[in-house]
Amino acid sequence: MMHADIDFLRELNKPGREELARAFLPHTYAKKSLMFSPRDERDAVFIITKGRARVYLAYEDKEFTLAILERGDVYSTHTRAYVAALQDTTIMSAETVHIHRQLLRIPEFTGTMVRVLGEVLRHSISIIDNLAFRDVEKRLRSFLAFECSRAGADQPGGGTLLDLGLTTEHLASLLGTTRQTLSTILNTLSRSGLLEMRGRGVFFVPAVEALDEERPAG
Amino acid sequence: MMHADIDFLRELNKPGREELARAFLPHTYAKKSLMFSPRDERDAVFIITKGRARVYLAYEDKEFTLAILERGDVYSTHTRAYVAALQDTTIMSAETVHIHRQLLRIPEFTGTMVRVLGEVLRHSISIIDNLAFRDVEKRLRSFLAFECSRAGADQPGGGTLLDLGLTTEHLASLLGTTRQTLSTILNTLSRSGLLEMRGRGVFFVPAVEALDEERPAG
Repeated sequence: MMHADIDFLRELNKPGREELARAFLPHTYAKKSLMFSPRDERDAVFIITKGRARVYLAYEDKEFTLAILERGDVYSTHTRAYVAALQDTTIMSAETVHIHRQLLRIPEFTGTMVRVLGEVLRHSISIIDNLAFRDVEKRLRSFLAFECSRAGADQPGGGTLLDLGLTTEHLASLLGTTRQTLSTILNTLSRSGLLEMRGRGVFFVPAVEALDEERPAG
Repeated sequence: MMHADIDFLRELNKPGREELARAFLPHTYAKKSLMFSPRDERDAVFIITKGRARVYLAYEDKEFTLAILERGDVYSTHTRAYVAALQDTTIMSAETVHIHRQLLRIPEFTGTMVRVLGEVLRHSISIIDNLAFRDVEKRLRSFLAFECSRAGADQPGGGTLLDLGLTTEHLASLLGTTRQTLSTILNTLSRSGLLEMRGRGVFFVPAVEALDEERPAG
């Protein structure tokens, strides 16, 4: 998101907008510093005037990036996300409550906000896709590898036979997914030769190591 | 999101906006019908002029609601979400490519868009919270209950002893979470008396049924 110049700041400097302009104060943050966190009480909007910032959700040591804000991008501190400076970064910020109504009447502001929110939303949906669907395969593979090491029967001709004693439905609920999603993933693993389905809850795994391997994200 | 009247439609009818107004065509959808799906090629913006619609993500039979759109709400067909009519619903829609620039200059449009996108984003982040964190507890409880039934040792005084033979790190990766999140959840389960931690990968479970019970969402 690059901008040759910042339309919104130019709009703020127009006659009749003195009061609104005065509500915006500059702040500078050193590279890598945390600018806003979900624990902040503040509800402010800000515009990046210099540098770059990362908006992300954090769950202990797991993080999901929602957006990289660049010069001219507008965002709010009130979205339960963290914002951290990727470089030395300067912003202009104002308390939302004071300026909300006036801001929403400036197309240069709302237009930028729509673009940034659209970008954040696209990233959020990708994260949900990943969490809801693609991570299930990884969990299934780890689970089956664990069960093979724990309860699998090594076969004379090689490979391991695993009798989980679980219906697809129960296995799906164990993995936090649906029966349909699980069936799709099992079929994929089967087609790629990582396992053979031998009826109700019984699997033949030619090579347990291959099942539990980290693969590049699809 | 209720509106006494629809500012944006009033703006469309102002002089000088005839071309933009002509780009918007009405469509009516019967209650419960699917209005837009991620598979649609169309990239359109629409405004609800009558009825209500639900915006949601769907993964086979798992669904996450992102927003309920009401009269006056503006949205885009291009967000990888489904949109379905909750009642008989009428919209005005236009191809985004033709009208994008002009629309972004109408504060009544962008202001509504910012509000709706903000709402959708809040829901998205809640969904991510749930998927990333809260579902882990459910999966952990199901997993431990399964392992108890499979490999647990019933104790003479009641309860089940389970030796998983797994580090917290490996168990966390099996459940698709982090070591820290897993520790937090294990401590919570321990405090509520559902299990006792007896050192590296060994758990005592007083009542396996209680561990696997569905509880109301926190």
